[in-house]
Amino acid sequence: MPQALEGLKVLDFTQLLQGPYATQMLGDLGADVIKIEKPGSGDIYRKLTFFNEWIGGDESLCFLPCNRNKRSLALDLKSPEAADVIQRLAREADIVVENFRPGVMDRLGYGYEALHKLNPRLIYCSATGWGPDGPYRDRPGQDLLVQGLAGVVMASGQRSHGPVAVGTALSDQLGALHIVYSVLAALYYREKTGHGQRIEVNLLQSVLAYCMQDFFTVHNGGRSFERPDSGIAHPGNGAPFGIYRTADGYLSIAMNPWPKVVEALGEPDLLRYDDQQVLFDQRDEVFHAIEAVTVTRTTAEWLDIMLALDLWVAPVNEQKDVADDPQVRHLHAFREIEHPKAGRLRVTDIPFRMSETPGDIRRPPPLIGEHSREILEECGLSPEQIDALYEKGTVTTEALTPSPSQP
Amino acid sequence: MPQALEGLKVLDFTQLLQGPYATQMLGDLGADVIKIEKPGSGDIYRKLTFFNEWIGGDESLCFLPCNRNKRSLALDLKSPEAADVIQRLAREADIVVENFRPGVMDRLGYGYEALHKLNPRLIYCSATGWGPDGPYRDRPGQDLLVQGLAGVVMASGQRSHGPVAVGTALSDQLGALHIVYSVLAALYYREKTGHGQRIEVNLLQSVLAYCMQDFFTVHNGGRSFERPDSGIAHPGNGAPFGIYRTADGYLSIAMNPWPKVVEALGEPDLLRYDDQQVLFDQRDEVFHAIEAVTVTRTTAEWLDIMLALDLWVAPVNEQKDVADDPQVRHLHAFREIEHPKAGRLRVTDIPFRMSETPGDIRRPPPLIGEHSREILEECGLSPEQIDALYEKGTVTTEALTPSPSQP
Repeated sequence: MPQALEGLKVLDFTQLLQGPYATQMLGDLGADVIKIEKPGSGDIYRKLTFFNEWIGGDESLCFLPCNRNKRSLALDLKSPEAADVIQRLAREADIVVENFRPGVMDRLGYGYEALHKLNPRLIYCSATGWGPDGPYRDRPGQDLLVQGLAGVVMASGQRSHGPVAVGTALSDQLGALHIVYSVLAALYYREKTGHGQRIEVNLLQSVLAYCMQDFFTVHNGGRSFERPDSGIAHPGNGAPFGIYRTADGYLSIAMNPWPKVVEALGEPDLLRYDDQQVLFDQRDEVFHAIEAVTVTRTTAEWLDIMLALDLWVAPVNEQKDVADDPQVRHLHAFREIEHPKAGRLRVTDIPFRMSETPGDIRRPPPLIGEHSREILEECGLSPEQIDALYEKGTVTTEALTPSPSQP
Repeated sequence: MPQALEGLKVLDFTQLLQGPYATQMLGDLGADVIKIEKPGSGDIYRKLTFFNEWIGGDESLCFLPCNRNKRSLALDLKSPEAADVIQRLAREADIVVENFRPGVMDRLGYGYEALHKLNPRLIYCSATGWGPDGPYRDRPGQDLLVQGLAGVVMASGQRSHGPVAVGTALSDQLGALHIVYSVLAALYYREKTGHGQRIEVNLLQSVLAYCMQDFFTVHNGGRSFERPDSGIAHPGNGAPFGIYRTADGYLSIAMNPWPKVVEALGEPDLLRYDDQQVLFDQRDEVFHAIEAVTVTRTTAEWLDIMLALDLWVAPVNEQKDVADDPQVRHLHAFREIEHPKAGRLRVTDIPFRMSETPGDIRRPPPLIGEHSREILEECGLSPEQIDALYEKGTVTTEALTPSPSQP
């Protein structure tokens, strides 16, 4: 099958999560992503993992999920020899993505101005935490810090228990999606006009845009969101919107006509709350009244009862059980790939269907500098020039040590 | 300034949040978005709001933030007269986005096959909650329900307090960003080949993709994430990563070298935890030991102390205070627009910078059918034909009743 972004070359100077996840999304739809890493050690995310657990020897649970469909060139960007290589690559590239702290790429000689001069069709995207300038320019911009500053943390959880951060990387993923959004729009413009451009994406504004509805209400509605003191799931919503304990787990109940909820619960007394204002003002009391009933049956029993009444409800899954959910299985949301060191890996597949260009996982995450030699050959360097770069340590390729589980 | 997506025409058959936010993102970068609404009542999101609060008479706090940069055509899709109008529009359109339940557009005669025949260059994106088929095909797919089923809820909050949903619309916003991602990639492919295609985006897989790192660990790391029993902010991380109470609010502390944290806290005793495994295994105990110190000073005092030591920390803002944060002000993340009924509104601006095509807010959210007549004229209908549609009620335009605060 053809790929939507086939033929596009992406120079990827990013590390950690936001940038690499963005370029993986471009690679998933066919772009040729060249990941430029530090010789020997590679992307610093390779050295971070969850629970201090590693697979295939020293492969990271953080790094592997966001670096498939890329080739790796391990090149010392501070060496004088790198300039020739980067310039050759930049002349042929369509897109550059980088997420160094502001100013670093300019100091290295690979800033927007320098590469734009070589290739005016280049789309050059810089990703930062707090933006490329301003009072927080030099502060560390990191997922949790951005969630907190942008107001997401104070909007989640129960008033009496303190605010709650999202237990998944929110800011980085939103930043990555905004890189893809802006870069692909710029690409359309370039196809029409021949002009590349400079793009600056930051985590902070990506999260603010994500919360646009909440800020709109806070700024124009004359009221602030206040966290409820129960499992009501949004500070702007009334009961029953929330997460309810059942006999064996949890159940989510979204907005629903109250009399139907009462019918499902089999507690006609609860009709006394049948008023939108009451359901908002007394939402915590209503929540506890509902939960007193939901704990008497299992989640599956409630789903049978409530779905038969067309209520908006769903099971609340543990992450480990999600892949076994019947709809998740039906959608083939996960698939397996082979990694030369870590073996067989189960990963999230392309998350949508495109009839003509479905996307694919063509490559597992690369070893450090796995493709250094082939990329340098494609740039037109001679075997002697390439050998010289390896000898100086300007370029490296990680030796493949198969994992013990491999034949 | 030119716009990246200028000249593109989007037929927008969406309601509620996921679809409208996606087409707003296309409109923000210059696309001409034609929002097709039900005559008289419009998008059902216009009738939902937070806190039962309305502005400018009957304008919704939910609807307004996701419908700028669109023109509205109020047209009865079930009327026989609509077919001619939709066919005329589809012949000239580049992109269709719809989020009816699966099968509805086909029954109306405006499904992918029908419109593709009229215009093979069309990119036709259907957005659903659970996907276009499978066991949950006909169940209501809604933001909170998807968060719960996809495992996000069970990964957030404290073990002893029950799981927590994100207090902002997560699934809808991620679904919207995946619509933009796939549609813009398909657009590049169409520019190269002339071929449109069908795209199917759903909330469920959008959220699963967003959690790809967590699922990767659960499936390949042999361990599940377990919620901590303190303000530690991610189930896979150890202390100090978390949200800490201070004398006057909260402070977020990300990953940091432990001895530096201890130095900032001024409690050398805490060096006894200086081991990565201990900081993970005893994270709740460490959290409470840190918080016993952070409550003794204000957030501003801690920021001064900790930023001077280059620690990764940030203030935790209430949503109402975010716009006054110095960095948010510097970035001009919010701006004001004028709405004919609701007056001056403060909204989130384009969340990134593009040097050649910066995007703009050219139009406030439309009134219901505000542009019905001009759109029908552009389609080539005669004034008499248009009048006849209005007379039958097939097409409407909301009368402008200025808000009391307007001159």
